[in-house]
Amino acid sequence: MQTDLKTRLFDAVDRAFDRQIAFLAELTAHPSLRGQEQSAQDFMAAELSARGYEVDRWQIDVEDIRHLPGFSPVLGPYEDAVNVVGTHRARTRKGRSLILNGHIDVVPAGPLDMWDSPPFEPRVADGWLYGRGGGDMKAGLASNLFALDALTACGVAPAADVFYQSVVEEECTGNGALACLARGYTADAALIPEPFAEQLVTAQLGVIWFQVHLKGLPTHVAYAGSGANAIEAAIPVIQALHEMEHRWNAAENRHSDYAHMDHALNLNVGKFQGGDWTSSVPAWSTFDVRMAIFPGQSIDAAKAEIERVILDAARGNDFLRNALPEVVYHGFHAEGYALSEDGSERAASAIAALDQAHHTATGTPLVREAITATTDARFFGLYADTPALVYGPRAEAIHGFNERVELESMRRVTKATALFIADWCGIEER
Amino acid sequence: MQTDLKTRLFDAVDRAFDRQIAFLAELTAHPSLRGQEQSAQDFMAAELSARGYEVDRWQIDVEDIRHLPGFSPVLGPYEDAVNVVGTHRARTRKGRSLILNGHIDVVPAGPLDMWDSPPFEPRVADGWLYGRGGGDMKAGLASNLFALDALTACGVAPAADVFYQSVVEEECTGNGALACLARGYTADAALIPEPFAEQLVTAQLGVIWFQVHLKGLPTHVAYAGSGANAIEAAIPVIQALHEMEHRWNAAENRHSDYAHMDHALNLNVGKFQGGDWTSSVPAWSTFDVRMAIFPGQSIDAAKAEIERVILDAARGNDFLRNALPEVVYHGFHAEGYALSEDGSERAASAIAALDQAHHTATGTPLVREAITATTDARFFGLYADTPALVYGPRAEAIHGFNERVELESMRRVTKATALFIADWCGIEER
Repeated sequence: MQTDLKTRLFDAVDRAFDRQIAFLAELTAHPSLRGQEQSAQDFMAAELSARGYEVDRWQIDVEDIRHLPGFSPVLGPYEDAVNVVGTHRARTRKGRSLILNGHIDVVPAGPLDMWDSPPFEPRVADGWLYGRGGGDMKAGLASNLFALDALTACGVAPAADVFYQSVVEEECTGNGALACLARGYTADAALIPEPFAEQLVTAQLGVIWFQVHLKGLPTHVAYAGSGANAIEAAIPVIQALHEMEHRWNAAENRHSDYAHMDHALNLNVGKFQGGDWTSSVPAWSTFDVRMAIFPGQSIDAAKAEIERVILDAARGNDFLRNALPEVVYHGFHAEGYALSEDGSERAASAIAALDQAHHTATGTPLVREAITATTDARFFGLYADTPALVYGPRAEAIHGFNERVELESMRRVTKATALFIADWCGIEER
Repeated sequence: MQTDLKTRLFDAVDRAFDRQIAFLAELTAHPSLRGQEQSAQDFMAAELSARGYEVDRWQIDVEDIRHLPGFSPVLGPYEDAVNVVGTHRARTRKGRSLILNGHIDVVPAGPLDMWDSPPFEPRVADGWLYGRGGGDMKAGLASNLFALDALTACGVAPAADVFYQSVVEEECTGNGALACLARGYTADAALIPEPFAEQLVTAQLGVIWFQVHLKGLPTHVAYAGSGANAIEAAIPVIQALHEMEHRWNAAENRHSDYAHMDHALNLNVGKFQGGDWTSSVPAWSTFDVRMAIFPGQSIDAAKAEIERVILDAARGNDFLRNALPEVVYHGFHAEGYALSEDGSERAASAIAALDQAHHTATGTPLVREAITATTDARFFGLYADTPALVYGPRAEAIHGFNERVELESMRRVTKATALFIADWCGIEER
């Protein structure tokens, strides 16, 4: 790449950066919780359209993806699950095509009084933007878009097709990214600016969500001895699941990318509900669990062991023995994915391009990291033979209170992304 | 009482019994859950009015009762909390006045699929009526009303004022019965046909409801080590509360009426809620607890110990230590009450009248029982110097699934109640 273009791209990012922050703030103000992504997607579609991209906006139909590998089961309707893809069609198509992917959905804010300021009223302070979803991952959606803008501002365009994806469902199933695949969007590489502090993600875990339903005979609490408490009956089940978690994390069971981590696989009881009345012994409880698995670990085998552990714990409990728990799956059925295991020339070349772009933009070498979460990268890597680079800005407290993203980090990532696009796709005159 | 009147009253109860069952079924079909008692109270007011009673129907105003002993704190509005009292004014007023009390509110049905038939579509089978609230305590409301009807059918009326009360809020605060007191309804005795199998309740426990709120810093589950799970943090707190329950039940702490019971005081975790998202470490949980106390045990001292136990458990927990739990009271602040400790002539006389009525109606002696629940009897006994007799039909699975009441038991209680009214109040010609 010409030094001149690099400088011009950086200048373009800098010149537009106030607008990029304003864009991020506006996008973060849309409370795009699961089922409420519509207004944010309208905003994204309008922004893409205003820039001249071909906009594809469609509602996901479970029937289109149910049969595909990587599909995660869902409960309830998908009426509000809308994806947006903006396409740049290259004139020359002489370069390598690229998917720029990001998710629009955000996780719930939790109790509002734990926030220093309202989660969907983003504010900038001390170089950070605060707000739910600002880091995870609307700053990434912004860096993808404004990196493309920088090329435009320099009078050039990617010399290959680029698909800008704003997808739903990353935080619970990944079915948004899967629906993009099913709709035919493929490319030579994918970039996903999830907020992992400007590091390249070389491996990510798989994630399984399951729900445990306990039921039993309730009674007036005056006769508590003859009833059984479906809330407290969960305690030994949860303990047994933690013992399983401990076993799965044992050194001999670890994937090589995680060999140095004592506890990569976290089991999280994320939601719990039970009982209807304070003076009735609760007849039911339901809790939602997230469990991670290593790349290469089979989902089916993991599910079988989860079910066995739950049923064994139940059989050891007087109450549960007579009304065995039900395990329901809705949400993540996500396999792990290790970019580090992609031995293709294309992967090596994409990583090399990002290495170079990052180094040029930041002056530091690109650090590799195996992460203990999942991302949509798995769909590209596992099911579409497409190396997926997860590389995005620094954020803090994602899924927590006072989530924030560092603006200078977003600037650096935007610059690196612009360079990466120019290198990977090549450029053509507009 | 003349043998002749006794026979005529029994005949009257028998003749009206099909109508009484139909009344009970219709009343049970009203889903009079907390906040939804209106249609049932409309029905009760209409039935009382049709019989010529003076009907008083009013909305409870918390301001009228907040300052009174026995008041229980409430959350939320009382817009739908409506009491109904039907009054019989005696012509001669030569006898002793009587309150016939019953509660119209029922507890939630729980998961519908645990019921053999829908809880608010009562059905009769094998001599039992099935349905939520049929036993607790709409059969008692029916026996009170149809006992009065039996006198009417015999051409007589109570020779003292009788106040037929259909109250709300028995299942959570007792503020419905308290509001009757505040409105000026007092009498020489009270009868409450709660479903305790034709036994006379000589003592009842006090009940305290409290809610525990846990909060903390959530995070993405990928970093679970740095967050803390507000759901699992409840486990040691619940364990500490059970240890307290164990201490309170120790032999040396028991009220004499409960000396023979190893575990009269039950602590029930009746509801639990926590977390917002399966892959976020939960930042909050809330659970609702019911704890019983013995008659004579101080509510303030009990609350102080509950709070101390919760805080001590929290201080021993890494997560909770930094965000101590909050204890919120809403619902029962109920003292225990022992009719057995009422040494008044009036109490002895009321008990003797019921002894006689029960024996005449059933051919068996009246058995005494100390119960492990609370009832509205405490308001009359503790705060209005009125002996309160709790005596009602046999029911099963109250607060459970397939709640049912035995119809022949309701018939016997109706007969005994008619006799008791005629004896206690005396009779006058209509």
